[in-house]
Amino acid sequence: MGPAFRQKRRIQFAETDLAGVLHFSNYFRLMEEIEHAFFRSLGTCVISEADGVTVSWPRVAAECEYRAPLRFEDEVELRLILTHVGNKALSYDVEFVLGNEVAATGKITAICCATGPNGDFKSMRIPEALRARLAGRG
Amino acid sequence: MGPAFRQKRRIQFAETDLAGVLHFSNYFRLMEEIEHAFFRSLGTCVISEADGVTVSWPRVAAECEYRAPLRFEDEVELRLILTHVGNKALSYDVEFVLGNEVAATGKITAICCATGPNGDFKSMRIPEALRARLAGRG
Amino acid sequence: MGPAFRQKRRIQFAETDLAGVLHFSNYFRLMEEIEHAFFRSLGTCVISEADGVTVSWPRVAAECEYRAPLRFEDEVELRLILTHVGNKALSYDVEFVLGNEVAATGKITAICCATGPNGDFKSMRIPEALRARLAGRG
Amino acid sequence: MGPAFRQKRRIQFAETDLAGVLHFSNYFRLMEEIEHAFFRSLGTCVISEADGVTVSWPRVAAECEYRAPLRFEDEVELRLILTHVGNKALSYDVEFVLGNEVAATGKITAICCATGPNGDFKSMRIPEALRARLAGRG
Repeated sequence: MGPAFRQKRRIQFAETDLAGVLHFSNYFRLMEEIEHAFFRSLGTCVISEADGVTVSWPRVAAECEYRAPLRFEDEVELRLILTHVGNKALSYDVEFVLGNEVAATGKITAICCATGPNGDFKSMRIPEALRARLAGRG
Repeated sequence: MGPAFRQKRRIQFAETDLAGVLHFSNYFRLMEEIEHAFFRSLGTCVISEADGVTVSWPRVAAECEYRAPLRFEDEVELRLILTHVGNKALSYDVEFVLGNEVAATGKITAICCATGPNGDFKSMRIPEALRARLAGRG
Repeated sequence: MGPAFRQKRRIQFAETDLAGVLHFSNYFRLMEEIEHAFFRSLGTCVISEADGVTVSWPRVAAECEYRAPLRFEDEVELRLILTHVGNKALSYDVEFVLGNEVAATGKITAICCATGPNGDFKSMRIPEALRARLAGRG
Repeated sequence: MGPAFRQKRRIQFAETDLAGVLHFSNYFRLMEEIEHAFFRSLGTCVISEADGVTVSWPRVAAECEYRAPLRFEDEVELRLILTHVGNKALSYDVEFVLGNEVAATGKITAICCATGPNGDFKSMRIPEALRARLAGRG
């Protein structure tokens, strides 16, 4: 398990709810944002062309544990840690760190898929070029 | 475990993403929508006044397993099944059923909290009146 | 100008913000929801196949005037009034009615477009079959 | 009219829709994001304490004209131009610039309000300290 990929992210007003805190569904959007930044840091994109097909990464599972609320204008540090690279699947954790506190921890498992228009997904082996880049982070 | 609380919900355009399917974060919003409809069906609201305080239900954990994509204008049946009523905590599963297929299954655990302005939460025992109503469904 | 197309819509928790009201951006989502319900009421869909192409309706302009806030669990009546059917363009107003009060009024102008994958849009004349259906509402 | 306040913003996956482009409602969220960054650049916040009350800025009108689509991972430059500072109201335009092209232009008018819990708004004169800061940008 390699070092975390890190990124700061400010909580926006529209992401809060009437309880005054980041809505629990929006943690999943932030997890995805850092996942996509991670792919960019590897010189690729979460949607790419490889082996003659369009590759994307639909999720098979996502979860989050919430420990402390996040609020408007909080600048949270997101830390993505790659936890598993399988034949077809990828798992990673995301920590939401505010100050010295881990306010939440999420986990996403995604499957490498050949992707047709309108959400037709067929799982496939992770392309070797991408696998090599992920290994450099694993 | 009582019968599921059920509600139909059409997938909206703005809830899809460029892959043509319901964005994975939006399943959590749909889980919350049926939770709130469930509270209404009990004659109460997810935010209520009880025992002299404002009661709300921040989440401590949320997860979802995705089996098949949902698409724009799909009319999915949401089924909420109450799985645990503790001293302070409540857990429920939500199934996303399209036709005869369970396209996804989610789970949320929420904690009964006395709630101040701006997201100050203090856990509390579930008020008896609400507990009695939940028992009628359990 | 024909009668309004009407639909009730409950304001959801995730659509509010820390000010305790429906976030101003979400009025545009509600406008779109009733637009799509309106297309369904005409026996079609906002995305359809006609004249050998995929037809969709990208927006060229959208606006909203806000008079009174909408809150969590408010059940607002949306009223869509078709105001213009041109060669290629369609305009409609949407009123947000709570009780007897018009809480907000929006307006959208959309252009009929032949639509390629990934958001390639080419404006086109509104297909005659659809035009006839719209005329029945105009 | 002073110089524009500028900020780069990458279009996120969850902000796109099945047409493959930034959903039209999300332009309003981006307008708000740069508005809030603008307030921060003045050393304040869109929600602040002044003259003994909580001040916030509910919108009375918002609009957007769309010229060219924005897509996933586009890095758009947002340019906020303050166009009016009245006794109580503030108006600004936001340009969405991609490369050398203005892809969209929005406008928001907001009213300075003393704000109670749960969305009780009472319009008020813009506090002098804030007015002075805005004048430095006007």
